[in-house]
Amino acid sequence: MKYTDEHLRDLAKFYQTHLLEDTVPFWFPRSYDLANGGYLLMRDADGTLIDTDKAVWIQGRACWLLSTLYNTIEPKKEWLDGAKLGYDFLKNKCFDAKGKMYFHVDQEGNPIRMRRYFFSETFAVIAFAAYAKASGDVEAGKLAREIFGTCLEYLYGEKEVEPKFESTRPSQGIGIPMIMMNTAQQLRETIGDERCDETITHCINIIEKNFVKDDIRCVMEQVALDGSIIDHIDGRTLNPGHAIEGAWFILHEANHRDNDPKLIDLGCRMLDYMWERGWDKEHGGILYFKDVYDKPVQEYWQDMKFWWPQNETIIATLLAFELTKNEKYASMHDKIHQYAYSHFHDKENGEWYGYLHRDGTIAQTAKGNLFKGPFHLPRQEWYCYTLLKKYLDNGNNSEVGSTTCGLDIHYNYS
Amino acid sequence: MKYTDEHLRDLAKFYQTHLLEDTVPFWFPRSYDLANGGYLLMRDADGTLIDTDKAVWIQGRACWLLSTLYNTIEPKKEWLDGAKLGYDFLKNKCFDAKGKMYFHVDQEGNPIRMRRYFFSETFAVIAFAAYAKASGDVEAGKLAREIFGTCLEYLYGEKEVEPKFESTRPSQGIGIPMIMMNTAQQLRETIGDERCDETITHCINIIEKNFVKDDIRCVMEQVALDGSIIDHIDGRTLNPGHAIEGAWFILHEANHRDNDPKLIDLGCRMLDYMWERGWDKEHGGILYFKDVYDKPVQEYWQDMKFWWPQNETIIATLLAFELTKNEKYASMHDKIHQYAYSHFHDKENGEWYGYLHRDGTIAQTAKGNLFKGPFHLPRQEWYCYTLLKKYLDNGNNSEVGSTTCGLDIHYNYS
Repeated sequence: MKYTDEHLRDLAKFYQTHLLEDTVPFWFPRSYDLANGGYLLMRDADGTLIDTDKAVWIQGRACWLLSTLYNTIEPKKEWLDGAKLGYDFLKNKCFDAKGKMYFHVDQEGNPIRMRRYFFSETFAVIAFAAYAKASGDVEAGKLAREIFGTCLEYLYGEKEVEPKFESTRPSQGIGIPMIMMNTAQQLRETIGDERCDETITHCINIIEKNFVKDDIRCVMEQVALDGSIIDHIDGRTLNPGHAIEGAWFILHEANHRDNDPKLIDLGCRMLDYMWERGWDKEHGGILYFKDVYDKPVQEYWQDMKFWWPQNETIIATLLAFELTKNEKYASMHDKIHQYAYSHFHDKENGEWYGYLHRDGTIAQTAKGNLFKGPFHLPRQEWYCYTLLKKYLDNGNNSEVGSTTCGLDIHYNYS
Repeated sequence: MKYTDEHLRDLAKFYQTHLLEDTVPFWFPRSYDLANGGYLLMRDADGTLIDTDKAVWIQGRACWLLSTLYNTIEPKKEWLDGAKLGYDFLKNKCFDAKGKMYFHVDQEGNPIRMRRYFFSETFAVIAFAAYAKASGDVEAGKLAREIFGTCLEYLYGEKEVEPKFESTRPSQGIGIPMIMMNTAQQLRETIGDERCDETITHCINIIEKNFVKDDIRCVMEQVALDGSIIDHIDGRTLNPGHAIEGAWFILHEANHRDNDPKLIDLGCRMLDYMWERGWDKEHGGILYFKDVYDKPVQEYWQDMKFWWPQNETIIATLLAFELTKNEKYASMHDKIHQYAYSHFHDKENGEWYGYLHRDGTIAQTAKGNLFKGPFHLPRQEWYCYTLLKKYLDNGNNSEVGSTTCGLDIHYNYS
């Protein structure tokens, strides 16, 4: 199919409507925990609460979403008040005595589980930065920068993540440079920080040098320290949706850097490779895991369809189209969009199911749990809407996906 | 259906033939690692090696199987030599400097991953004890007892498993008393140890008191320290196949204790409850996870069919039938047997697939990986064959499933 401006206008309207009249209203206002702060997000398909616990990643992501809606869509008091609930809860309840953030706490913020990683921290950075911009709260901005500093120490190996494996076969994952690239992009595009551009360049270099394998048309999920493929079950396991998320972070950066053709090429190669490997030609949708040499994958759920790989692929294909105007990407975007909205969207209650069998039937009904909440879907709808709106408003020349669309910047921390 | 003696004779022949002409030949002799010791067990459906790494649990389980076949089926030199490969590898390569066992090592025995639990140790106990009986190796018996002592320290809280969760919401799992009961049973029935009976009684008491909920007809997978249900996603998650495995450990004990009617009743209740909750009335087979209150389960693979819950249910239903002669259990055994052998068994290459979708289609083809190897299926075929053989040979009066069926005991360590 050809994407005419008229079609793109319809698509912008579609994403805007879904975001504001379907996805966001599923979560808010009912999830605001006015008694304890934070959000009650673990919900069944119809919105019934299935657990009062709080996943720290998702608390940060929800605070980011509300702040970002306020910053870029409309300065609604409800969203700012809601964002403050998350900011206060994260700040006051989700750090241990040494300043490391928990993974999982109970409704009141008592700690349930600490994990080795620093992903809770990266989501706190984007939440606090977006909230600082929305509220003008100076302390929130200061904290965002401080926590970003801690994350940089992990990135550069000055602080060590407690190892899961012995030293026999050291490896590195694409997750760390990916999340740090996106965290730096979010920080830069809200309150700004002079460390961001250098961090992003560093992360892109790691990804291109170590994880992108042009000879076999593949983006690895983990590799040895020298970038070579570790030919064991774990080392061979690919996560196409994750690599495609990495692709659009790089395409976003390409756009930010005056449509840098080398970065556009890198992001499009990553998207092409992992679409080839991850798109299910039989049933449609992006599969969860694949083996680089098509051997059996350890993880049992490898051929399921999760919500978030579809969200990331919807963004990546639309952004690749906007940056290249190559109809191939319009066609890919159309395929993934049609598949995802016809299989995942819950027309009765709003939002998406999270977990489908390979054949597209629903495997379980939760809309929110320890790993799913208001993030990948609303981020996708928000990103695609703002991307299209800017292109259509500005004759395709401006920076896409920045968080300042249509809004006065009333706070500039930097 | 009614289980006549003629049908039971056919069934015994079926399990014997599958064990010795289908399952065991899939694994051996090709998996013996003559160069490094241990076994190369990570194999695709056709037996192709997909990884040279060694999962320590599975190394112990394979050594146990070979020793047990030698002890109870036929004193074949190949099996004893094969068992020695595993024994030596476990003893020399799978312990760290402090004496804790690894979870995952490479082909040569270099450590890849240590985990918090002591399950590698429990499988080493049953492997070393069975090998000691098979070989007459005094050191193997001594080591089995020593490692069992370490496991008892964990069981009684003298040694602490590094906690995964913070102290806010302490819980206990059924896995520890279950595995310790079975480990003690194996040790008792190979080389004997005076600590076994007391350990088994202790474990059964914990399970009955804390995990079996007659009011809601359920066996919990984890509970609070006082046995109450923890009404959060993790606490509500049931593992029917696991509870049914626990049921047959208790039925085995009932039989050992002169068919103790209270233990028969306990084991049958556990089986009944979890069959009701785990049996898939639509497609057949035992589902992986269920929520105690039928809310959504966190784990994505909750409605898949794994091989091992079917194996454990085949044993439990047959044993319940032999102990009660209640036709209900014959009918349940027939159902699970028919389902499992028609969906999991690979008629072309032998052995079973490990992972089916809920509808019975194959989700991935590996026969061996980090978690699957020669254990649940051959143990089931061995247990059912020896159980039926004893009943048929001895007019239904003898102890079932003991590991001394039809064999001179040429080694008695105790």
